[in-house]
Amino acid sequence: MSESIPDRSVIEKAHELITPYIHRTPILTSSFINELAEADLFFKCENFQKIGAFKARGGLNAVLSLPEEQLKNGVTTHSSGNHAQAIAFAAAKVGAKAYIVMPDNSASVKVKAVQGYGAEITFCPNTPEDRQNTVDDIISKTGAAFVHPFNNYQVIAGQATAAKELIEDAGVHFDAIIAPVGGGGLLSGTSLSAHYFSQGTEVFAGEPEGAADAILSLKSGKVEKAPYVKTIADGLLTPLGVKNLEIILQHVKNIFTVSDEEIVAAMKLMWERMKIVVEPSGAVVLAAILKNKEVFKEKNVGIIISGGNVDLGKLPF
Amino acid sequence: MSESIPDRSVIEKAHELITPYIHRTPILTSSFINELAEADLFFKCENFQKIGAFKARGGLNAVLSLPEEQLKNGVTTHSSGNHAQAIAFAAAKVGAKAYIVMPDNSASVKVKAVQGYGAEITFCPNTPEDRQNTVDDIISKTGAAFVHPFNNYQVIAGQATAAKELIEDAGVHFDAIIAPVGGGGLLSGTSLSAHYFSQGTEVFAGEPEGAADAILSLKSGKVEKAPYVKTIADGLLTPLGVKNLEIILQHVKNIFTVSDEEIVAAMKLMWERMKIVVEPSGAVVLAAILKNKEVFKEKNVGIIISGGNVDLGKLPF
Repeated sequence: MSESIPDRSVIEKAHELITPYIHRTPILTSSFINELAEADLFFKCENFQKIGAFKARGGLNAVLSLPEEQLKNGVTTHSSGNHAQAIAFAAAKVGAKAYIVMPDNSASVKVKAVQGYGAEITFCPNTPEDRQNTVDDIISKTGAAFVHPFNNYQVIAGQATAAKELIEDAGVHFDAIIAPVGGGGLLSGTSLSAHYFSQGTEVFAGEPEGAADAILSLKSGKVEKAPYVKTIADGLLTPLGVKNLEIILQHVKNIFTVSDEEIVAAMKLMWERMKIVVEPSGAVVLAAILKNKEVFKEKNVGIIISGGNVDLGKLPF
Repeated sequence: MSESIPDRSVIEKAHELITPYIHRTPILTSSFINELAEADLFFKCENFQKIGAFKARGGLNAVLSLPEEQLKNGVTTHSSGNHAQAIAFAAAKVGAKAYIVMPDNSASVKVKAVQGYGAEITFCPNTPEDRQNTVDDIISKTGAAFVHPFNNYQVIAGQATAAKELIEDAGVHFDAIIAPVGGGGLLSGTSLSAHYFSQGTEVFAGEPEGAADAILSLKSGKVEKAPYVKTIADGLLTPLGVKNLEIILQHVKNIFTVSDEEIVAAMKLMWERMKIVVEPSGAVVLAAILKNKEVFKEKNVGIIISGGNVDLGKLPF
């Protein structure tokens, strides 16, 4: 178990460990969107990943890194979204028990998906205190290992493997790689992979205006609160983790904020032109590029599409 | 210009010719859908192809195969859909003029797409006679070369390259490959590639009940009319071409018909589980597999997804 910032070999090890269980997702390009952005964009499609999001990577690496002795007691986490599925999925793969704490207002489709992996769900009121108390209760009863959704070095090393594959598979040198930022698991991992596996590649992030804590944290150097929290990109509502921020401060060049209107426009563009189902959080990055063309102009830019878990009955267009 | 059924080398040549202009589209898999089908399915994603459909392949090969002398006079075709875009796109790539005849009730998004490639559009009433007369008029005035959407050996050789890539890239031996059938360009090409580039691979097709001419033609050995023509899979309304049928009779094992309800259910499954935008015609094949599980059970099955051109504002779910 790595208790310091993952080095190159830790990420390589994570990649080996999780490879049998994940999709090596394809990289797509669109000449129409390239013309619009005046840059060469390479989209790493983690919407095609197991459970429909990059989080399968971090969840798997965290669970697969646990000692066998610990795995006997199972794993636990609290999440209303993709991380819940990631841990349930990872536990099922290694034959461990998963105890997932979900807010009692969770979408039924997400509850069903977690149940589908055989996890035991405990519902609780949707406050940070209730979530933590419920998880603490499970840990004291079962001895299960807690896996934080992002403030965890094994999770970060797992998420880093998406950018590692992008760098290995694209066949170009990247001037820049850009990822969305919520808790910072994907962004911190992406920035580590760019640092270890590429040269001279700048890392950027896209963040919703309605959850703009990361940009403030990047400026102040400590975990800040967002001025207000309301965005369609519901995967990015969480504030940064301390471990994530430490890495982001070292390796991320800049963070661009975008409005919900810009997110929806980018999302629609990706559906229409790339023929892929992308969740709002996954479209934040393209929105950020189209809003800041001068930064990316005529560059090779790698883009991590975070996921595609969206309710087809409630599309914003 | 091949005036007989394309042999192995003609398809290889077509592939070389068009490769600089097309996407080598990825092959996706879904463990959820595999469990449902009780088979291993490999989806060749031609919805990610240039112009959003496999037709870019045939259009390009037909145009690139024309003598330079002929190209000076341009190319022409009639189509309300993907073939119009394919020819406009192909002509733009070689710097030739494209004259596209479109029915005057064509969807404006398709008209715009054709215009976007710089083609000259002539509108006409939506009858076979009017379409042909308008094209004949253009040919007599300009000397442009007519490229039929499917009853054309260069088009067939181009469409064959999708299955060729699927066979080369999947890393498994296919027990079966299945494609949708409308005019038969994709199906005849697919069956040729399975014959030349694989061994012991049976080829099947999916066809809408509301355009079920190919199944009748396969049985009688001549081009038949569909008993009725009404289906959501609007890319498959056309009756089989004579050249296509000749190949299909030699190389296609069976054709399965599916209802619009089954098509929409398969389409929704692909959107939700594979996170891809697929048009109804592209979902016909999965619908056929799920309806005929016993045929494909425990087999490696290659699936050609024809395209992803669908109006996001008019989804059937």
